[in-house]
Amino acid sequence: MGLAGRVVETEVRVRYAETDAMGVVHHAAYFVWFELGRTEYTRAVGLPYRQVEEGGTRLVVIEATARFRRPARYDDVVLVRTAVREVSKATLTFAYEVCSPDGTVLVEGQTVHAATDRTGRVRRIPEEVRAALRDGGRNRPAQRE
Amino acid sequence: MGLAGRVVETEVRVRYAETDAMGVVHHAAYFVWFELGRTEYTRAVGLPYRQVEEGGTRLVVIEATARFRRPARYDDVVLVRTAVREVSKATLTFAYEVCSPDGTVLVEGQTVHAATDRTGRVRRIPEEVRAALRDGGRNRPAQRE
Amino acid sequence: MGLAGRVVETEVRVRYAETDAMGVVHHAAYFVWFELGRTEYTRAVGLPYRQVEEGGTRLVVIEATARFRRPARYDDVVLVRTAVREVSKATLTFAYEVCSPDGTVLVEGQTVHAATDRTGRVRRIPEEVRAALRDGGRNRPAQRE
Amino acid sequence: MGLAGRVVETEVRVRYAETDAMGVVHHAAYFVWFELGRTEYTRAVGLPYRQVEEGGTRLVVIEATARFRRPARYDDVVLVRTAVREVSKATLTFAYEVCSPDGTVLVEGQTVHAATDRTGRVRRIPEEVRAALRDGGRNRPAQRE
Repeated sequence: MGLAGRVVETEVRVRYAETDAMGVVHHAAYFVWFELGRTEYTRAVGLPYRQVEEGGTRLVVIEATARFRRPARYDDVVLVRTAVREVSKATLTFAYEVCSPDGTVLVEGQTVHAATDRTGRVRRIPEEVRAALRDGGRNRPAQRE
Repeated sequence: MGLAGRVVETEVRVRYAETDAMGVVHHAAYFVWFELGRTEYTRAVGLPYRQVEEGGTRLVVIEATARFRRPARYDDVVLVRTAVREVSKATLTFAYEVCSPDGTVLVEGQTVHAATDRTGRVRRIPEEVRAALRDGGRNRPAQRE
Repeated sequence: MGLAGRVVETEVRVRYAETDAMGVVHHAAYFVWFELGRTEYTRAVGLPYRQVEEGGTRLVVIEATARFRRPARYDDVVLVRTAVREVSKATLTFAYEVCSPDGTVLVEGQTVHAATDRTGRVRRIPEEVRAALRDGGRNRPAQRE
Repeated sequence: MGLAGRVVETEVRVRYAETDAMGVVHHAAYFVWFELGRTEYTRAVGLPYRQVEEGGTRLVVIEATARFRRPARYDDVVLVRTAVREVSKATLTFAYEVCSPDGTVLVEGQTVHAATDRTGRVRRIPEEVRAALRDGGRNRPAQRE
């Protein structure tokens, strides 16, 4: 699939608890790493997801997909590369690659999100969120806590 | 340590995701099983924890301990045996044994809980909760969803 | 998508640890439930996955997808409905629906698997596994531990 | 309890998946963070745990305790401070504090470990491991991957 536009990289050190009896990372852990990638992407474009939630909007996952090519192991360092694939009024799509330090793609994936209010009612993606994600944060400063 | 008073048993089938690269159940998973045991204990004594939360009280974990004697493995069936060890105005103490079907104790543990309101402010354990747990639910019917 | 052929149902009680700060089940937990569904499917058709592994074959996940329609909450009982979608020499495809007790579909998904030996080398799906899954276990007795 | 001797600090950013429906970090997640702290401690003293395992020794958790004082929340940065409390021929004891950046202790804990070979048979803690942990790695260079 590949990533286009701005790509934000997040380093993850594999935790023992993320491995399973096959001796490698359990496949469900990658969806947690995708989520880390999203968090850092939103911080990098100047609108941290925590701030989005504090503003009353939740970006819920409505679809998630991953292709697992090669395993990661305990104590490996991997890079989660995150990009925005599509922004519409109803949904946001993020794309991910989890790579080893030498650039080998281990896993690739995609998540689609809708916006809800605090009670879970679906609403449009707020314009502020769409703007931040659409332009890869070009017009906003990155934020660090 | 051993369990005294009413003991509620909950069957758990070990999930692949609960194992780690040592080929056995990751130690943190047992604390999740203790939580299952608590949930079923509160249901058995007629005051399901969900109902406690809906009433505005949260029972937060302020201390947790476990001793790991023997490992459990993928697809094993284990019993989580749960009892109440102590009920005071400020705290509740649950005790647990995780056993194999033949009664061998694999893990034993204890958790101590305080009550808070929805905002996280500490409060007394509600009398209704204390009563339900103190008498092992003798005066209340067990509830099934 | 819908499920065709034999469907095996597995009951799951939502754990507190499976919820997140949105107050509902975290999306990655459903992939763990799919895995439970697979385990029970293989048991139902007479070839429990544990036995497959003991025979030297691992069925690794090479693709996983889910669509999240409605949330599940702490202490809810849900049904994981599992079916086999496709069996080939190279891959197995399972399909899932997670439903509330009234039959409402909360989440649906699919996983694709390849076989490896213990060292992680890809091999054909063993004929024994293909046979068990292809015919929904018609010619084999279900196994209970 | 407090930490004595060499203290190794590991920064952790709270993941959304680590929170629960109370809106704070689930208590079992802290045991996973303790494990991260141990991993980094062993790296800092020049004998990374992965290397210990590759040498045929596993350090299994035989006891784990935590006291939860204050909650951590999604996207918070916390420090896991890890120290060695005791080294004997039979067991190793690590102590931990999870702190907010301003130094407030959120959680403190302890884990006790025994050594086993690859098959799970208990053995003495290898002298190399005891030496590395006993002197806080004074005589070994720290290792970075």
